[in-house]
This record gives sequence, C-alpha cells and structure tokens, in this order.
Amino acid sequence: MKILITGGGGFLGARLARTLLAGGQLDGQDIDAVMLADQQAVPSDLQAHALVQSVTGPLLSQVDDLVAWQPDAVFHLASAVSGECEADFDLGLRSNLDSTRALLDAFRHAGHKARFVFSSSVAVYGPDAGHHWPGVIGDDTLPTPQTSYGTHKLICEHLVADYTRKGYIDGRSARLMTVTVRPGRPNGAASSFFSGIIREPLAGEVAICPVAANVSHPVASPGKTIEGLIKVYEASREAYRGRTAMNLPGLNVTVAQMLDALEAVAGPAVRALVKFERNAQIADIVANWSQGATAERAAQLGLMPDPDFQTIIRQYMADCQQAGLSATALKGLGT
Amino acid sequence: MKILITGGGGFLGARLARTLLAGGQLDGQDIDAVMLADQQAVPSDLQAHALVQSVTGPLLSQVDDLVAWQPDAVFHLASAVSGECEADFDLGLRSNLDSTRALLDAFRHAGHKARFVFSSSVAVYGPDAGHHWPGVIGDDTLPTPQTSYGTHKLICEHLVADYTRKGYIDGRSARLMTVTVRPGRPNGAASSFFSGIIREPLAGEVAICPVAANVSHPVASPGKTIEGLIKVYEASREAYRGRTAMNLPGLNVTVAQMLDALEAVAGPAVRALVKFERNAQIADIVANWSQGATAERAAQLGLMPDPDFQTIIRQYMADCQQAGLSATALKGLGT
Repeated sequence: MKILITGGGGFLGARLARTLLAGGQLDGQDIDAVMLADQQAVPSDLQAHALVQSVTGPLLSQVDDLVAWQPDAVFHLASAVSGECEADFDLGLRSNLDSTRALLDAFRHAGHKARFVFSSSVAVYGPDAGHHWPGVIGDDTLPTPQTSYGTHKLICEHLVADYTRKGYIDGRSARLMTVTVRPGRPNGAASSFFSGIIREPLAGEVAICPVAANVSHPVASPGKTIEGLIKVYEASREAYRGRTAMNLPGLNVTVAQMLDALEAVAGPAVRALVKFERNAQIADIVANWSQGATAERAAQLGLMPDPDFQTIIRQYMADCQQAGLSATALKGLGT
Repeated sequence: MKILITGGGGFLGARLARTLLAGGQLDGQDIDAVMLADQQAVPSDLQAHALVQSVTGPLLSQVDDLVAWQPDAVFHLASAVSGECEADFDLGLRSNLDSTRALLDAFRHAGHKARFVFSSSVAVYGPDAGHHWPGVIGDDTLPTPQTSYGTHKLICEHLVADYTRKGYIDGRSARLMTVTVRPGRPNGAASSFFSGIIREPLAGEVAICPVAANVSHPVASPGKTIEGLIKVYEASREAYRGRTAMNLPGLNVTVAQMLDALEAVAGPAVRALVKFERNAQIADIVANWSQGATAERAAQLGLMPDPDFQTIIRQYMADCQQAGLSATALKGLGT
C-alpha cells in the first residue's frame, strides 16, 4: 500500500511516517511506499529510507501530481498554524482552506477513492455570545471557532464529510488536542507555551508562561496523537460512525499540574526556570479555548488520553535521548 | 442608503426588494438605490422601479462590480437549490460556495465594510451516526449537514463569521426554515412538495405528497421569512449576539396538519386533490430533516413563527389575489 502524508516533513508528519515505517503495516497491509509532501525538506533519516519519496513546495501546486501517484492512504496534516493565519489572512485561506479543497477535488476528478484522514483541531471550539459555551467540550459540542485557523479546520471537516458522502474519498476527520511536548523552537501557535514551559526548563533555559497557573486545557502527547490518527484511519466506517469529525482524547491539565509534573520528574530547580509574565494577547486567546475535553467516540475506538502529565514529559525526554539530543536538549536536568 | 440583493430576481429576493421599497427605509435610513443581481432577469415591476438597478448573469463574474457599487447593505440570497446541488456537484461548489467566498473577498480587498446578511438554511441540520440527533433543532444543535447544499450553507456561515471577526464585513447569518407556500412551479428542492400540496390543490390541480402524513417539519411563510431577514439586518451587533448563525423561527407542523388547514380554508374538495404516493428518494431525504425547530435567539429579536398554518395559506391566497392571479391560480377554490 502507498501512503501520502501532507505536512510529512513537520513534527507530527515525520513522526507518523517513522511510526508507520517501523511497524511496516497499516490496517494489516504491507507498506510499499510513503510519499512525504511538505513546504520544507523532510528530515534526513526519512529522506534516506528506501520506501520514502518526498516533494518540497506549496501543497496547492502539488495536488495533481500527488493524486496521480495514486495513494491508497492519505494523512492530510499540512497546515499553517494559528498565529500565522491570524497575521496573514491570505496565507490561512491558501494553506489551510484552498489547499485542502484542491486536494479533495483532485481525488474527485481522478476518480480515485483513497482513505483520507484529515487532521483537524480542538481550535474549532470556542465561546460565541450567541451560544451556550460549556467550556469542557465533547463530540456533540457546537463548534464556533474564534480564529481563522479554527474556522478553516471546521470548514475542511465538512468538505471531507461531504466528499465522503458523495463517494469521492473515504474521509475521516480527527480533531487533535494541543500536542505537548513539541521539540525544537517555539512556533507561531498561540499554544506554543504549553510545550515551552516544559521543553525550555528541561534544556536549562528560562521559560515564560504567559497565562495564569489555573488555566486548564486538554493536551495529548505526540505518541498518543499519532496513535489516534492511525486508529482513525484503521477504523471501519461503521466503527468510525458518521462522517463528521471525531475528537481525539485529551488529558485535561492545568498549567500548575504541568509544572508539578515537571518538578516531580526533573526537580525543583528545573521548575523554578518557569516565570509567569502575563501576555495579554496570548492570555486573551487562551481564555477562549476549551478548558477540557471528553472524547466518547474515540474511546469507542479504544483511544484513551495519556494517563498523566508526568508520562507525557517522560515521553518527550525519551524522544530526545533517542534522537541523541540528551546533552543539549536535556542539560537542564543536571542529572 | 444603497442595498444589494443577490438572488434579487428570485422569489424571496424580489419579495424582499418590494417590501423594502414599499417601506422606503431600512434601519431608519432612506433607501436611495436597490441593486438586484440574479442569474435571471428580475420581475418587470422591479425593473420599472425608479430606485432599482439590476444585473443579470452568474454572481461569480459580478462580485467586483457589485462591491465597486459600494452597497451599504447586502442581502446575499443567491443560491442553487438542494436538488440541483445533489445532481451537479460542481454547480453547488460554484454557485453556493465559491460565489460567496468571492463576494466576501471582494469586500475585503475593497476595504468596504458593508452590513451583510447571509441567508443560510435549516438544511445545515441532519442526523449523523457519530452524534446525538435531537430531531427538533435549536440554536445550539450541532449541524451535521446531509447534503452538499447544507454543507455549503454551513461553510459560508463560518466564512461570514470569520470575515466579520476580522472586520472585513459586519456579517450575520440567518437560517431560513422551509418557506411555504411558494408560488409558481415546483423547483429542484426536495422540499418543493411542502408548497405543492397547498398550491396545486388551490389551483384545482392534483398534487402528489411523496411522504407520509405524520412527517413533521418547521416551516415559515414568505412574509415571516422576509421579516426575519430585515430584523437580523437591523439588529445591533449586541442584540444579534455573537457571530455565528441564528435560526429564524419556524412553525412546526405535520403534513396532516397542513392538509387540515387547507380543508378549513378551502374545503374538503380541495383537500381531496392531494394524493399520497410515496417517493422513496424524497422520503429518504426528508427523513433526515429536522422534525421541528426552536429559535430562542430570534425570539429575543422579537421574531415569532407564523401563528398557524391557516394563516400561512391565507397569506399565499392574498398574495395571489394581489398579483391578479386569483382567476387562474386559485380556481380550485371554486368560490
């Protein structure tokens, strides 16, 4: 089977590719080829893999060639992040809306019905004055997005559902919770600090937390997120139920609980590297986010949240060590 | 003030234009000009009106000129109907999705912030296996559209909300209930029979009801629908509350109640012209529709449903008489 991953050079896309290649199978079928499409060059370990091909550039210009490659499986992860979309409205429309529409239309015109997982986001939710806002969201909560990013994700969910209804693709949309801990540097997402307040102290650096310690949010480790995308792909249509988006499970934690977990894993000196400096712009955005999540449909697929935040931190540390980053990325541990 | 009505040659668009011109004002301001954009030529009474201009052709090719005209008020009603969109997927994308997007982008690029009412539809709702389906829908019910028409309406609601959030327009979306009684001939909408089973018997013709007598649905008269669009326009942003779509009020009636009302107004011989012949295709579509509706947000704007179905029938008969159609359209009355 041939697998296309858009955003395949990004953090989640590359991790998904590595996980699939390590297992050798998807939905019980041997993996013959993996195509990674990304704006940026894909990581060298994936470039060197015998089964991997990659294309670099804007997705919008690649869709016809990618569909002509006739993938059996598609994981459509490519996306501009929320902060980028707020700063550049056209970028958001092009990268997150028009590119997805073009990809779906390319499958439709080719008459090639691939199984298609779209990575949506908890960012589809938020309070709108005209509606009841429960704070803790579930599969039946009304999405009223508060950003262009969330708006475009929600729109694409409904395109995926309708193209599926018409039989052009076998589509499923999985709403990712905030993925924590992300490696590397802060990105343009307003949620970036949810990783930064763990990652930077572990590397011996000061981290600024721009929101109050009692802010609560549903998060998921990279590992659980990838597990969710694969299970949603492998679910039968009957098990997936319906055509609209499914929330992936999230662990509901406060910033204070995250820092307690950091201290338990890495000690009080590491925790002390986190300073609270309210950033009104970020705090206002986060105030509109879900304070927690339930995920009944995901549970019926056997998907559960990470058990606790210490486990999430330990996954990040193990990832760093596996990547040979222990000396630099984890110097803050001092152990 | 200058008012643009897309779909201004259609049944609702023309009625809205006539209502506004008869009143002479919108939101307390004198109406100086009304632009009607439609695929078809607009009715002759409107063409002859001193304040009316019109353009004929596909909306997608007109948006730049329409925005350059600098309307203060926009009622965006232009739309292909549900049956057309199911039969021709590209038509639905072009007429209902791309045209709306192009109109919104034209306002954005022009830097001209008009007040913009988008006519959405109760067709955004329907049962999806992955979600709880209450049957009777309200403002907070999760929309999971079951047609391309409903999908595109929902998508455009969210575009209107996001362009509003960004300040490109002052947008509001009103979800119309099924408008009954429509004059003229059956159109491509699966809901067409909701008008046909009243209109055809009143004209002395046999009408086929393709669904069972116990089918229930929220309907609204043309008059109440136009009242709703105008009130949504005239609401302050605070009174409208939020940015996402508001359900207009619907009268919840069964087919049997509609026919009882027909008999009460026009007699048993007229009612006897309605024959039940199940059409599986239409019945299956209608089985996925809302069985009723509540409209709390609309009520807070002072909008109430039609009081009963007899009132709706009498509105239709009065419209026919006013249009000089009594002899032909109402011959079935035999009185």
